Amino acid sequence: MATGHTDPQRRTRILTATLDHIADEGVAGVSHRKIAARADVPLGSMTYHFTGIDDLLREAFTQFADHVVAVFEQHLDRADSPEQARQAVTGLNHTLSEGPQRDLILAQELYTLAARRPEYRELTQAWMLRSRHLLERHFAPDTAHQLDALIEGLTLHRALDDAPHSGELTRQAVNRITAA
Amino acid sequence: MATGHTDPQRRTRILTATLDHIADEGVAGVSHRKIAARADVPLGSMTYHFTGIDDLLREAFTQFADHVVAVFEQHLDRADSPEQARQAVTGLNHTLSEGPQRDLILAQELYTLAARRPEYRELTQAWMLRSRHLLERHFAPDTAHQLDALIEGLTLHRALDDAPHSGELTRQAVNRITAA
Repeated sequence: MATGHTDPQRRTRILTATLDHIADEGVAGVSHRKIAARADVPLGSMTYHFTGIDDLLREAFTQFADHVVAVFEQHLDRADSPEQARQAVTGLNHTLSEGPQRDLILAQELYTLAARRPEYRELTQAWMLRSRHLLERHFAPDTAHQLDALIEGLTLHRALDDAPHSGELTRQAVNRITAA
Repeated sequence: MATGHTDPQRRTRILTATLDHIADEGVAGVSHRKIAARADVPLGSMTYHFTGIDDLLREAFTQFADHVVAVFEQHLDRADSPEQARQAVTGLNHTLSEGPQRDLILAQELYTLAARRPEYRELTQAWMLRSRHLLERHFAPDTAHQLDALIEGLTLHRALDDAPHSGELTRQAVNRITAA
């Protein structure tokens, strides 16, 4: 049984605790001490697994982006035609905008970090590229690019709206942007 | 000459200092003491003009939304036809995504706040409604709704991309979403 510094669970626990902390209080308050306490690991684990706070944030947000890309993939993998892909994108938009507030908050925290510190744009760019590549299985590259931006805006607006727009409106927007 | 508590400049200075502080360090660190120092006003001014931190944040972000809505309006007011309105929206998208990083950061800080604390969604909803109403001068309500979300996504993706997409791609997306 793996224990101590080489316990791979420990690294995962630290990353999850980091995302939980960011969701609750934001990026600003992340410190080795707070995250170690939240993950229930010794303080030394933090510097063993991560070179510093930036490394920790980068790895935690990478894990988060992996999770959202997986949701994207689950929806899009089922589609066998452009029409099914359009339906999948509409479903995806509603899954994301009705999903856990935690995901909404984490996405916004990452964008805020990338807006403030350009070195974090590697992360957001890699995430955008992965989403677009998934969409390119079904649509031309320029269309995939536009559709990815549309999904972003519709998801955000829907999630922040007390009277969220209907599935019909999403469907119409997706159909329009993907019309050849 | 107005001075002291009744000086209207003082309230404006406090709001500008609040937005500057949020752009630099985020919402989390806002305190009466820090903002009073930054705005160069006595600490008592803070409680004279604002009932608390939430009131201060609300008023500061309202001032920021007013500014972005004014940019929207400047672009759209010049348009006399749907075709001109499409061009205006494309220009708007590029103005916003190439604009000051401060605006990008402040928008993301506001969305993050609204994602975390639903009581701030009044602000983001009021902002979305104002943008949509401006777009409704040129487009049908559902189209305006979709276009507003598209602008949001394109602006964010463009601002965070080291190889920002072309004006042609924006134009195509705007044309597609507004095609009747």
